[in-house]
Amino acid sequence: MSWVSVTQPNGFLLCFVSVFMVVYLGNCVNGIPVVDLTHVQDSNTIFWPGNPQFNFTILYRGLTDGGYWYESNAIQTPEHGGTHVDAPSHFAKDKLRIDQIPMSKLCGPGVIINVKEKARANPDYRVQVSDLKVWEDKYGRIPDGAVVLMNSGWSDKYPNKTLTFGTESVNDPSTFHFPGWHEDAADWLVKNRNVNVVGVDTPSNDYGQSTTFDAHVILATANINGLENVANLDNIPEAGSTIYVAVINLQDGSGGPARVFATNLDNSVNAASFSTSFKWVLALCILLTLG
Amino acid sequence: MSWVSVTQPNGFLLCFVSVFMVVYLGNCVNGIPVVDLTHVQDSNTIFWPGNPQFNFTILYRGLTDGGYWYESNAIQTPEHGGTHVDAPSHFAKDKLRIDQIPMSKLCGPGVIINVKEKARANPDYRVQVSDLKVWEDKYGRIPDGAVVLMNSGWSDKYPNKTLTFGTESVNDPSTFHFPGWHEDAADWLVKNRNVNVVGVDTPSNDYGQSTTFDAHVILATANINGLENVANLDNIPEAGSTIYVAVINLQDGSGGPARVFATNLDNSVNAASFSTSFKWVLALCILLTLG
Repeated sequence: MSWVSVTQPNGFLLCFVSVFMVVYLGNCVNGIPVVDLTHVQDSNTIFWPGNPQFNFTILYRGLTDGGYWYESNAIQTPEHGGTHVDAPSHFAKDKLRIDQIPMSKLCGPGVIINVKEKARANPDYRVQVSDLKVWEDKYGRIPDGAVVLMNSGWSDKYPNKTLTFGTESVNDPSTFHFPGWHEDAADWLVKNRNVNVVGVDTPSNDYGQSTTFDAHVILATANINGLENVANLDNIPEAGSTIYVAVINLQDGSGGPARVFATNLDNSVNAASFSTSFKWVLALCILLTLG
Repeated sequence: MSWVSVTQPNGFLLCFVSVFMVVYLGNCVNGIPVVDLTHVQDSNTIFWPGNPQFNFTILYRGLTDGGYWYESNAIQTPEHGGTHVDAPSHFAKDKLRIDQIPMSKLCGPGVIINVKEKARANPDYRVQVSDLKVWEDKYGRIPDGAVVLMNSGWSDKYPNKTLTFGTESVNDPSTFHFPGWHEDAADWLVKNRNVNVVGVDTPSNDYGQSTTFDAHVILATANINGLENVANLDNIPEAGSTIYVAVINLQDGSGGPARVFATNLDNSVNAASFSTSFKWVLALCILLTLG
C-alpha cells in the first residue's frame, strides 16, 4: 500500500480524477455534438473544368397505387466534386483506389492549419512548413493518423465559382487563384509525420496557379489521401477534434463524394482544449473539496 | 476535507479510477479501431427492381502530357442501392430529405438485434417487439439517439441477388423472401423510444413479402431514418459501439449511398462490454495496489 500515503491530497486528487473521468466519459459516450464539414451535393457543386455535369433525376415523386407516398431519384456525378476525397490512385500509378483504403485511414485527430489572413492578402498562398511548425508550437507534435486541413477561409465563397476559382474565366485553370499546399510542406508531412489525410477548403490541394500538381503527386505517391472543398472549418477547434472522412465505398474509384464531419470536439489530447477542460474540472474540484 | 478520510481504500480507489481513466481515455482519443459496415459500390450493387443500372465510367486513366499519372471517373447511381440511407421523404410526404437531416441524427449508440437463428429458420421473419425486449433485458434501455439494426445474417449473401432476395425471380418482388422489421416493432420504437436510425442487413426495412411497406411508412412518418444492406454486423458488439451513417449530402435526396462504420467498440455504457472493461481494470488495479 505504498502507492498513496497522504490522506488530504488524496481526497482532492480522488475527487479531481473522478470528476475528470465523469466529464470525459460523458463526452465520449455521446460522441455528439458533430460538426458537419460537408457542402451539399447538387447542380451547383463545383467540379474541375472538363468534368461532365452533375445530374439529379427524379425517378418517382408522389402517391402510389398502394396508397403510400414514394420518392426516388438517381444521380450522375464525377468523382471529384464538392467535398470529396482524392484517392492516392488519382495522381499516382498503382496506388490505393477508394475501395482499397481502409476506413481507419479515413479518420484521425483533426489538425487545422489556419492561414486565413495570409490567404486574404495573397490568394496564391501555399501552406508552408513554417505554418505546420506554428501549429506544433501551439498544440504539440502533429499526431499519428492526423487529418491535416488547411483553413484558408475559402469555404465561405463556395459554391460561387468566380469567387472560389478566383477568376471570371471559370473554365480556364491558367487563370485560377486560390490557396493550397506548398510542395515543401506536403513533402515535410510525408517524410516527418505519419498522417492519414491532407486536405483543403479550396478546390485543390495544389494552389490555383499550379500546372504540375506537385502536392497531389507527393501525397499520392506516399499513399496519403487527399480531401478538397471542406466546409465549416471555423466551427471546429484547430486541435483536439476527431475528423471522419466518410467517402462512398466506390470500387476502383480514384475519388468520390464524402460526408466529412468532426466529433470529440472537447476531447483534446492537445494543449488548447485540454487546458480548458482542465481548468473547468479543477474549479469544480476545488468547490467540491472545500464544500 | 470530509469527502474522503480513510487512506487504505483510497490508494486502491485512486489507482482504480486513474487506470480506468487512462484506459478509457486511450480508447476515446484514438477513436479507432473502426469497423466498416459498408458493402462496396460497383456494378454488382443490389438495387430494387425497376431502378436504372449503376454505371462507372473511366474519364481518364494514364500518364498525362504533364508527366504525372492521372485517374478520374464518373458514376451513375440510383439513390437506393447497396449500403444506403432511406430519408424520411422516401416514404412520407413533406418529411425530411437527405440534405435536411443533420449529421447528429445520422449517428448514435449501436443497438444490434440478433435474429440470425430465427431468420435462418424462416426467411420471412420480422423483428418483433419481443426481440427488442430481449436486447433491453440484456443491455438496458435502448439509448436515446440509437442506431437500431437487425442482424439477420443476411449480409453474407450479398451481392448474390438470388440469395439476397431469396428467389430465382430477382425482378419480381412478389417472390422475395428475406427478413425485415415487423410494423409492430417499428411502431413500438417510434412510440416508446427516441432513436435516430432503424436499419437492416437485407435490401429493405420491410420483409420481402411486404406489399404495403408498413415499417417504411411508420418510420418515415416519424422522421426516422432508414438504413439498408448493412455489412459486417457480426464484427461489432450488440451493444456499446457508436455507429455513424455517413450518407452523401445530397440536395433533395430521398436517400443515398452511405459509408457506415462503428467506433468506440470498447466504450460501452451498457452492461456487456462495460463489465469486460471493468473486470480487466479491476484485475490490473489489484495487481498494482498489491505490488
